[in-house]
Amino acid sequence: MTEINRQWLINGNPAGRGVKITDFKRFDKKLVNLKKDELRIKVEHLEFTPSLKGQMENQLDYAAPTKQGQVMRGRGIGEVIESKDPKIKIGSKVKAYLGWQDFATLKSNQVQVVDNDKFLLAHLGPLGSSGMTAYFGFLKAGKPKDGNTVLISGAAGAVGTMVGQIAKIKGCYVVGTAGTEEKCDWLVNSANIDAAINYKTGNLTESISRNCPDGANIIFDNVGGEFLDSALDLKNLAIGARVVLCGAISRYETFPHPPGPTNYFNLILRRANMQGILSPDYASEFPQAVEDIKGWLDNGKFIYREDIQNGFKNIPSTFLRLFSGQNKGKQLIKL
Amino acid sequence: MTEINRQWLINGNPAGRGVKITDFKRFDKKLVNLKKDELRIKVEHLEFTPSLKGQMENQLDYAAPTKQGQVMRGRGIGEVIESKDPKIKIGSKVKAYLGWQDFATLKSNQVQVVDNDKFLLAHLGPLGSSGMTAYFGFLKAGKPKDGNTVLISGAAGAVGTMVGQIAKIKGCYVVGTAGTEEKCDWLVNSANIDAAINYKTGNLTESISRNCPDGANIIFDNVGGEFLDSALDLKNLAIGARVVLCGAISRYETFPHPPGPTNYFNLILRRANMQGILSPDYASEFPQAVEDIKGWLDNGKFIYREDIQNGFKNIPSTFLRLFSGQNKGKQLIKL
Repeated sequence: MTEINRQWLINGNPAGRGVKITDFKRFDKKLVNLKKDELRIKVEHLEFTPSLKGQMENQLDYAAPTKQGQVMRGRGIGEVIESKDPKIKIGSKVKAYLGWQDFATLKSNQVQVVDNDKFLLAHLGPLGSSGMTAYFGFLKAGKPKDGNTVLISGAAGAVGTMVGQIAKIKGCYVVGTAGTEEKCDWLVNSANIDAAINYKTGNLTESISRNCPDGANIIFDNVGGEFLDSALDLKNLAIGARVVLCGAISRYETFPHPPGPTNYFNLILRRANMQGILSPDYASEFPQAVEDIKGWLDNGKFIYREDIQNGFKNIPSTFLRLFSGQNKGKQLIKL
Repeated sequence: MTEINRQWLINGNPAGRGVKITDFKRFDKKLVNLKKDELRIKVEHLEFTPSLKGQMENQLDYAAPTKQGQVMRGRGIGEVIESKDPKIKIGSKVKAYLGWQDFATLKSNQVQVVDNDKFLLAHLGPLGSSGMTAYFGFLKAGKPKDGNTVLISGAAGAVGTMVGQIAKIKGCYVVGTAGTEEKCDWLVNSANIDAAINYKTGNLTESISRNCPDGANIIFDNVGGEFLDSALDLKNLAIGARVVLCGAISRYETFPHPPGPTNYFNLILRRANMQGILSPDYASEFPQAVEDIKGWLDNGKFIYREDIQNGFKNIPSTFLRLFSGQNKGKQLIKL
């Protein structure tokens, strides 16, 4: 077997600035023999989420601290090529925090064996953290009702796409924003949401108002910034609206952080609600969500897309695609 | 009876600027004879709330529009001095939208007969709109639990005082902010809340942190601006916190409106919630609230204070006291 494990180590803390390629450093490490219960996993696909930047900054109290010099953290799917746990066979596909490297060495209780079926990569998307965030954020904090108007920012992203699909299944009218015409076309023509707005053209507040003439009952925000202020405009915020705060991609790379939404005050005039969500809070309910989403995937109700880049050397630059909005759907890389 | 009714008319729309004395104009109107079911009420006390400015601006969709030249709207208590409704006797005390004038002429179904007892003026405070806002905002959106830390801005104001008292009754640890040492002393020494912070001295974020070492579980905000950003600091926001948005006195006179809280993003990291509230939404439950609050008043559990100015000519300037924080407790005027 290969003796050398190529790795990307954390080489900088991007707190207070944008994340850069030089925040990661190549390192070649010799593989050592496995101990009892350990597995050697050949990393095949890695997934990327903006929260990885928060983990590098040690800003997320629900994630273990990170240190410079450690292998960059990241979830992925790989194949077991050596096993010291008789319950896990060589050739099994597993999902785990594999890290940015060719080979992960983990205890068998740190991995989840995933079905080697047509949904394999979905375990890094709709059946993974993006799917759980969308499912619980939308259903628990969004509290959709049949006929509700749902406004989603970053609608063509990994979470936004899932929210749109779940909202359609729940009988909602769905309007999404995205940053390119290609994404908007895909949202309406392939993902079958009702309307898409290119936030880079025209007046966003007016565009939302035109597409949500009675205001939005649910606003699912992955972006923050101008989007959030526009969505909270009195014209766009329905009485009793639920604003689900999932993320704010527009601010992760802006320092000092931009101000919050001036229009937050309209939450009073509209008796509306803004709820921050993190999917790990719902971990005990993940099995039900996975079952529901598998059902929707099975019967073809669920449309999503993966943006799969290639090659070990491109791992850091693929991560950076998230912050410039280059990713089309769930950002993955194949090693 | 007096032939002339002195009135203050709306003379300007303060939208986009601070409210001024010249937004009101004196007018003397002859009284005309009552029609069937009408009452003549001698106005004795008027109450003031910041929302009257919103009504002048026609910004509140739950209130009927206002026009320049009409008598300025305002709730008050007065005595019936003439009645064309046999069910309402001369000498009755009534609460109604009496307006800024010496005499109100209203249909009998527009007034509420109030007990002429020791709680009379409380109908303009704890038993009135301030009390309802505090009661429903705190209990419904704040969802207090025994032992919760509650942080209140404008804690010495009409609503804030009520929230503090209800929070103490519900077993919470209560910290309030106010703008003078006198108010802070009153809060701790008379109103018996646990700690008070003068937001005009020292670093507000640090002061809150010192007084809420485990963060606040409930933040009841009447002020907005710097307070809200400080309260949403990661140090000060407990996991699962409920932020009740009641008002934002710091912004009503600031144009263009200041930005929203930069720290709104921490609602995600703390899975916290920000809920705008308006008491009229709970009108059907007012009787229960009034019964509860009367009970607390009766057994002396409820501490509050009224700031009673005097004289018809001082009505507009008394209203302006709200926006400069001069009022000590519920702002009233006696005619």
